[in-house]
Amino acid sequence: MPIDHSSKQYDHDLEEIRSNFLLMGGLVESQFQEAVACFQTGKASDADRIVKADEKVNRLEIELDDACSHLIVRRQPAANDLRMVMATIKAITDLERIGDEAAKIARTARTISERSVISINHYEAIRVIAQRAGDMLHGALDAFARLDQKNPLALIAQDQAVDHEFRTVLRTMITFMMEDPRTISVALDIIWVSKAMERIGDHAKNIAEYVIYIVDGKDIRHTGYGLPKQDVVA
Amino acid sequence: MPIDHSSKQYDHDLEEIRSNFLLMGGLVESQFQEAVACFQTGKASDADRIVKADEKVNRLEIELDDACSHLIVRRQPAANDLRMVMATIKAITDLERIGDEAAKIARTARTISERSVISINHYEAIRVIAQRAGDMLHGALDAFARLDQKNPLALIAQDQAVDHEFRTVLRTMITFMMEDPRTISVALDIIWVSKAMERIGDHAKNIAEYVIYIVDGKDIRHTGYGLPKQDVVA
Repeated sequence: MPIDHSSKQYDHDLEEIRSNFLLMGGLVESQFQEAVACFQTGKASDADRIVKADEKVNRLEIELDDACSHLIVRRQPAANDLRMVMATIKAITDLERIGDEAAKIARTARTISERSVISINHYEAIRVIAQRAGDMLHGALDAFARLDQKNPLALIAQDQAVDHEFRTVLRTMITFMMEDPRTISVALDIIWVSKAMERIGDHAKNIAEYVIYIVDGKDIRHTGYGLPKQDVVA
Repeated sequence: MPIDHSSKQYDHDLEEIRSNFLLMGGLVESQFQEAVACFQTGKASDADRIVKADEKVNRLEIELDDACSHLIVRRQPAANDLRMVMATIKAITDLERIGDEAAKIARTARTISERSVISINHYEAIRVIAQRAGDMLHGALDAFARLDQKNPLALIAQDQAVDHEFRTVLRTMITFMMEDPRTISVALDIIWVSKAMERIGDHAKNIAEYVIYIVDGKDIRHTGYGLPKQDVVA
């Protein structure tokens, strides 16, 4: 296959990958926001639609991976551009997993709404963590779009806030379960949903770390910019 | 930078990536097996060692990603070889996450051993899922080593067995919690550990799917070889 060194075509291919990544990111973000709303309303038809939307995210994952491979083979990117492609290849996986978590939240919303007795205000229990995870996801996609990660410390703080919120939900649910064993099933569902949100925060953090890798060329995974890493339960 | 088209050097670089991937896989597998053993013995010093070993896995992740980038830039692999590199780049992330899950299991083992009252035989509760997840991980690494995925259906069956086992543990723990609220904390710990094992099974499945992609050039993620996909709780 002849190698096209035309920089115009090359830039076009890179830009297409970037814009399709952001398209996938936008889809995943709506999927998450709709799953949170569905958790509040409990509408089964909404849950079905959100779960269904995950198929499109899965297709986009495969298409984008394929586009990245093609770009590498056909355009043979130099180190700088390859950083962007490598980071995108990794971040695609995070987006796909966020889609999975959103679908899980929607499925759990359906399960909860089908229960005859709901003794816990389940939406109130996850409201704060949903807000924080959503903000993080939005921030990470925004950083990717603008290739701008001004404040990595703010990102770490956000991730720690999501983890903190998860532990709060966990403690609250344990209290409910201890006081009234009839709440055990719904409390566990709420814990799973909070866990999904905590993981969405982790994936958003991964994406933001890849942005730093693209922009600064620094791989700061596992180093946490020199800050101590906090453990999250489970 | 001059491009070295020497196929000997090229093969050497590819082989080095492969063998380092398998080295990382071996480390992660021991980390998992030791975490399971630690869950049985509850030795805090073992738990600390396993958590510490995760740092080495994290370093290997960064080094291997870097080696893959270098190979792409310096050797400009053709489509066939690039498939191997792309699959490795993706699978590295799975190995690293398996390491994280093993570290979580070790931390929970420590927590449980520190509890004054343990009213559930916690090791017995996770024995079967640990065995199944361990077999899957071993099989996936073996398939990667031999670039041989003879029986994708067997792999799906294994993953479904792990998922099934997770649901069994979950149901059992709910029963314990319902009958005696004092078991709630330890039952939740057991659920987290089973969840970590269920996720290790998922990562092993991902790795096996990448092997199929390397060998057959088919991206069978999300299609499940045409078999219906099963939902796992949470």
